[in-house]
Amino acid sequence: MTASSIRTDLTERFGIDYPIFGFTPSQDVAAAISRAGGLGVLGCVRFNDPGELNDVLEWMHENTDGKPFGVDVVMPAKIPTEGSRTDLDTMIPPEHRAFVERTLDDLGVPPLPDGGDRVNTGVLGWLHSVARSHVDVAMEHAAKYGQIKLIANALGSPPEDVIDLSHRHGVAVAALAGSREHALNHVQAGVDIVIAQGYEGGGHTGEVTSMVLWPEIVDAVGDLAPVLAAGGVGDGRQMAAALALGTQGVWMGTAWLTAAEYQLGATGDGPSTVQQALLKATSRDTVRRRIYSGKPARLLKTKWTDAWDAAGAPDPLPMPLQNLLVGEAHARISQSDDPDVVAMPAGQIVGRFNDVLPVADMIAAMVDGYGDSVKRMNGTLGD
Amino acid sequence: MTASSIRTDLTERFGIDYPIFGFTPSQDVAAAISRAGGLGVLGCVRFNDPGELNDVLEWMHENTDGKPFGVDVVMPAKIPTEGSRTDLDTMIPPEHRAFVERTLDDLGVPPLPDGGDRVNTGVLGWLHSVARSHVDVAMEHAAKYGQIKLIANALGSPPEDVIDLSHRHGVAVAALAGSREHALNHVQAGVDIVIAQGYEGGGHTGEVTSMVLWPEIVDAVGDLAPVLAAGGVGDGRQMAAALALGTQGVWMGTAWLTAAEYQLGATGDGPSTVQQALLKATSRDTVRRRIYSGKPARLLKTKWTDAWDAAGAPDPLPMPLQNLLVGEAHARISQSDDPDVVAMPAGQIVGRFNDVLPVADMIAAMVDGYGDSVKRMNGTLGD
Repeated sequence: MTASSIRTDLTERFGIDYPIFGFTPSQDVAAAISRAGGLGVLGCVRFNDPGELNDVLEWMHENTDGKPFGVDVVMPAKIPTEGSRTDLDTMIPPEHRAFVERTLDDLGVPPLPDGGDRVNTGVLGWLHSVARSHVDVAMEHAAKYGQIKLIANALGSPPEDVIDLSHRHGVAVAALAGSREHALNHVQAGVDIVIAQGYEGGGHTGEVTSMVLWPEIVDAVGDLAPVLAAGGVGDGRQMAAALALGTQGVWMGTAWLTAAEYQLGATGDGPSTVQQALLKATSRDTVRRRIYSGKPARLLKTKWTDAWDAAGAPDPLPMPLQNLLVGEAHARISQSDDPDVVAMPAGQIVGRFNDVLPVADMIAAMVDGYGDSVKRMNGTLGD
Repeated sequence: MTASSIRTDLTERFGIDYPIFGFTPSQDVAAAISRAGGLGVLGCVRFNDPGELNDVLEWMHENTDGKPFGVDVVMPAKIPTEGSRTDLDTMIPPEHRAFVERTLDDLGVPPLPDGGDRVNTGVLGWLHSVARSHVDVAMEHAAKYGQIKLIANALGSPPEDVIDLSHRHGVAVAALAGSREHALNHVQAGVDIVIAQGYEGGGHTGEVTSMVLWPEIVDAVGDLAPVLAAGGVGDGRQMAAALALGTQGVWMGTAWLTAAEYQLGATGDGPSTVQQALLKATSRDTVRRRIYSGKPARLLKTKWTDAWDAAGAPDPLPMPLQNLLVGEAHARISQSDDPDVVAMPAGQIVGRFNDVLPVADMIAAMVDGYGDSVKRMNGTLGD
């Protein structure tokens, strides 16, 4: 049974065919999700240069047939340690640096070919000032084309002025929540949509799993905000479970990392090194650790995460210092070619993705699977 | 929308109205579940004396209107350390005993009033010979009345002769699985029903959450065995999610601990000390630790679990030594009256249970909630 649409409050609000919200750092994937009837959400944290983000959003505009899309920023509600690169550098203990260097050597990760140019990769987007520049660029685009309809924040409620600015531009604000308390704080702060992310999700997660967390947050926020279900969604059955549990749609991230359109990290034909690691991973091949950013985040389990688990490894530093500490290591790892040494957020659902498929096919299969689940459930009802 | 029945392969197989399988150590609760149209499964681990189990099963027969019910035993497929109490006692390091004594003193847990009589509580059922006596008593009852239709094993596949014996008595065999590999091993061993228990479940659990694990196991075992969904089920929405994900029913444990019929540990009117702890717990008030049995099990987070997490606490011992070590402590704790010091397996869904309700009302509400979920999902389907 294929449905031409799956309607929830959120599909009506955004004018999309399916309640599938796809978070991805790849503009190719984000555009493909929106074209296929979902809502692609471009992760901005990798853009250190606002001009680059501007160019990419322009490309999104040209490649989405006028369909809506969103952006995702990493903006702590409380502004954490800020300052110049030099200020922050002095706060990192030398023994932490030595551990990282030694580990990279042990794992055979080569130095960066171009010296220090990539050193900042993945770092600056975590700083409040840079995240704020992402917001400004996105709002300019929203005003210009009216296609950006959603801004999501991965770290708590966004600051009040960002929420106000978004609303003035007709952009809905979403925020990730790992607990009932987070969700209530978001709604109180003026957030429009709560993304309830369970323990099994990739990246930053709390302790409570999707099965328990989603309906708990649905009940807690009631009519104040629709809830998107994140963490553990990979096929149409899980989308059916999400809607059965009272959410208004699904938020997926890990699924798209092995999509055919995902070109980040590609160095030639075939899957990239990171994709090779993702394709072979099972649901048991992730760990939740503070080593990526300083806050607990679920990552692919590799020799890199094993090294941080080994006896003698230092405790991770608080955000944003940990990301600064490992920023160069991440850049070095992402340029090496060993699938057993990658540093990549991924959820437990990674075990379901073992083939490279186009986004449109993935979404069509999800819609079919959703229909099958509904049909099966109707068949269970007695007289 | 109230359904008079919810039909799956498993409701047809057992001749029950709803695919609700309720595991509980309480015969009052187990009987109430079967009377209300589910299948009550009596946990046997607490019966050190086979004669006592025999009497309780006789009581179940007299109080279930001829409806089917089941039993649950704790029987490792590989027979672990066995032997007399004295043999095993010598394997426990004195510093572990000292830690337990010191902790109980620190937490103000009084000694047992009757000396040593209760010392073995909760211990012997973990030994293979005792679990085997549970099987024999259950099979006698199955032969006598034909009401025992299911035997479930909490620790891997049961031994081959137990599976054969059960089948000769027309008793289906179920086994808990925390991973795809466990499930495949069970089916290969001749187990009839796989109970897929996610990370969020109470008691022994693996790392993979229900949202990811249930469909993964459904796909892995295919037509070889129906799958029951365990871990995180508390209301009709979660039952709908379980069936949407391809399972044939739900297996619930934590839900019943605060049912009105649950009398274990009661010392007077009102909720017992353990129930007070469960009623006030949120979904974030559990931890998964090896301190209960030697294998990772999810427990209510209390001052007792905190003590084992504190600096200087010893590492837990392997099964069955850890349970032997803490057996007397569990008995002492269960006779004390501090809800902040309990030792109790419970899943994250404990946060949903904040009122004492009769089993029949709980099941009626689940059936209603299931119907509402199906109705809501039908409403999402476009033309």
